[in-house]
Amino acid sequence: MSFENCMRNVRSACPLIHNITNYVTVNDVANILLACGGSPIMADSPEEAEDIAAICGGLNINIGTLNAATIPAMLIAGKKAGELGHPVLLDPVGAGASRLRTETALRLIRELRLAAIRGNISEIRTLALGAGSTRGVDADVGDAVTEENLAASVGFVKAFARERGCIAAVTGAIDLVSDGDSCYVIRNGRPEMGQITGTGCQLSALMTAYLTANPDNRLEAAAAAVCLMGLAGETGFQRMLPGDGNSTYRNRIIDAVYNMTPAELTAGAKFERIL
Amino acid sequence: MSFENCMRNVRSACPLIHNITNYVTVNDVANILLACGGSPIMADSPEEAEDIAAICGGLNINIGTLNAATIPAMLIAGKKAGELGHPVLLDPVGAGASRLRTETALRLIRELRLAAIRGNISEIRTLALGAGSTRGVDADVGDAVTEENLAASVGFVKAFARERGCIAAVTGAIDLVSDGDSCYVIRNGRPEMGQITGTGCQLSALMTAYLTANPDNRLEAAAAAVCLMGLAGETGFQRMLPGDGNSTYRNRIIDAVYNMTPAELTAGAKFERIL
Amino acid sequence: MSFENCMRNVRSACPLIHNITNYVTVNDVANILLACGGSPIMADSPEEAEDIAAICGGLNINIGTLNAATIPAMLIAGKKAGELGHPVLLDPVGAGASRLRTETALRLIRELRLAAIRGNISEIRTLALGAGSTRGVDADVGDAVTEENLAASVGFVKAFARERGCIAAVTGAIDLVSDGDSCYVIRNGRPEMGQITGTGCQLSALMTAYLTANPDNRLEAAAAAVCLMGLAGETGFQRMLPGDGNSTYRNRIIDAVYNMTPAELTAGAKFERIL
Repeated sequence: MSFENCMRNVRSACPLIHNITNYVTVNDVANILLACGGSPIMADSPEEAEDIAAICGGLNINIGTLNAATIPAMLIAGKKAGELGHPVLLDPVGAGASRLRTETALRLIRELRLAAIRGNISEIRTLALGAGSTRGVDADVGDAVTEENLAASVGFVKAFARERGCIAAVTGAIDLVSDGDSCYVIRNGRPEMGQITGTGCQLSALMTAYLTANPDNRLEAAAAAVCLMGLAGETGFQRMLPGDGNSTYRNRIIDAVYNMTPAELTAGAKFERIL
Repeated sequence: MSFENCMRNVRSACPLIHNITNYVTVNDVANILLACGGSPIMADSPEEAEDIAAICGGLNINIGTLNAATIPAMLIAGKKAGELGHPVLLDPVGAGASRLRTETALRLIRELRLAAIRGNISEIRTLALGAGSTRGVDADVGDAVTEENLAASVGFVKAFARERGCIAAVTGAIDLVSDGDSCYVIRNGRPEMGQITGTGCQLSALMTAYLTANPDNRLEAAAAAVCLMGLAGETGFQRMLPGDGNSTYRNRIIDAVYNMTPAELTAGAKFERIL
Repeated sequence: MSFENCMRNVRSACPLIHNITNYVTVNDVANILLACGGSPIMADSPEEAEDIAAICGGLNINIGTLNAATIPAMLIAGKKAGELGHPVLLDPVGAGASRLRTETALRLIRELRLAAIRGNISEIRTLALGAGSTRGVDADVGDAVTEENLAASVGFVKAFARERGCIAAVTGAIDLVSDGDSCYVIRNGRPEMGQITGTGCQLSALMTAYLTANPDNRLEAAAAAVCLMGLAGETGFQRMLPGDGNSTYRNRIIDAVYNMTPAELTAGAKFERIL
């Protein structure tokens, strides 16, 4: 299936996405879901986790500001969504930065049937090792996916996806998206996106909507979402005026997702698929 | 009292509004309160609910991300505000989407003396029935207030307001605001407002400020707030440039509330009052 | 050390700042930290407070939406940061508005080794008196620092800083920053900044980054942050177009911090240092 069709499916299905996410970037997450054609609901109380999971089509779990009340909600909602065959995505924000984050992410991986895990290389390495260290929510600069280490990085991401039985998406200057068999290498995006809080959280939400609306083509859908976000970063950057900075750029990226056409996505997506 | 005077009263009184609201749209709620001439304070700890309610002039309760800690805060603050004669508004976000939301909204209606309830038709119907189902925070498309079902919808909203002894505001493509005796039918706004998260939450906060600053003309004040929000959506939309999307539109609407003059409100308000 | 060098140190050190802050303005806090050259991490669970404090360089505590779970996190993180010699800043939002806020702020002052306290005159007076009353998060208009009461205000802030053994920053139309010995009097900023939620919260985060990257020149660093924020308010205001309001202004200010050069800070800073 083409990326264009993945996009059309999101806009026609208008998937309702349950988000248990951090309070830092939650507003942008909701607005980017609306921008892409989905519909967001945020609900992190254990008392309603099952009800909300049941009426939604997909679940986006983000541990950016996890706490004692929201962790049980993640588990309850994740189990319910899994029972219903809904895609569940995990964004292990800051895994490695604290034992609580690392252990919670590992527990979610063990106890839930995940459709996808999306993080930076440091977070994914932490999960692969079962322990580790990461500098907050940003990948260690010395540990980025680069043209030089690309083959090794692709091998790592494929192995991680295969072992976990889900799609793995490692995003950074170069993005890798694999289902364990093949791997998309994606070169969309701008380095300035890292100077906005929450572009990763937004991508995770977008990817959940794409997975939900494309149940039979999850790898393509995940890769389409990564290309869309990166391309929106490029389109939004072109509209920046002198004096604009990271706050205006944030708005421009969501606006670009809102206005992107299927033809523009096809024309702008920069990817190769490696078997 | 004219809508112009309602607006002037908000700007001269600068009502301090206590908000117990969701973390998704809270920043926009605070900024729109400042934009309209009010002053926001957000406080959802039960331990301070009474103190904060006492220093404020009105209370805006929004159950968008309710949890075990904030529900008691809603009850404590609501009772204190009621004792002091301050207007209390309930925004039953997602009532019908989970038992927790439905039951909490019904409990707040039973235990508090509410000045107003504002929601979409699906949420208000859920409360009217004492149970129900709603698609997250959006009204069911098939259950919108339309020109075709207008008379029945007005009848429903008037009956709900009369039964609950408060102002009922059902907002959507056509907005209805009633105190049980008469009903404003308002046709301001743009459909694109539904592609921004939180325009409903913002309206609830705005309405609370208008109710607080116009204690003797609550129905007019509530209707003025609905017209103001819708008109701001129209004004903001006129300023949209090619490439702008829902994120920029969000800013433009708050900006439009900030800059709206009483004369512009009078000139732009599209309403009729039905007895 | 010059303000220019303080700014250069932030941009070269890229200090990682731990924020335990309110959910109202947290997104703007994260974006302004990125804009100034720092890196934010938000984490308010007691279970991870020590781990996160240990990997960061400074800690920003803001009690804007404190609750029973986050207060212990503030104490744990604050003690850990203190042990490690990291600067800890307290923003006592709304101290005086509720007993919970006042008592929590006083407890944090007693139990932590603070590098700085930043608030409006009403909040700082509340802390000085050990009790008091404040109108939400805004300073009482009748209690502002003015040209008329400047000498008395400087005396008060110097005395408070000396007594508490930390930097005290009282911000408003005129800003005062003292370490107990000398006092910066700063006249940057625009009154319209008060019509945006969270410019104070943003300044506290900025100041924490400046303190962290300038450990040997904390007073200058704190004053540089205050000048930077005020100057960004001026620069952002100059870019406002007809129809723009407080929501666009919010973006413009963060953008201005992002684009500010050391030379512009030096040219635009309006301050005097009083011994």
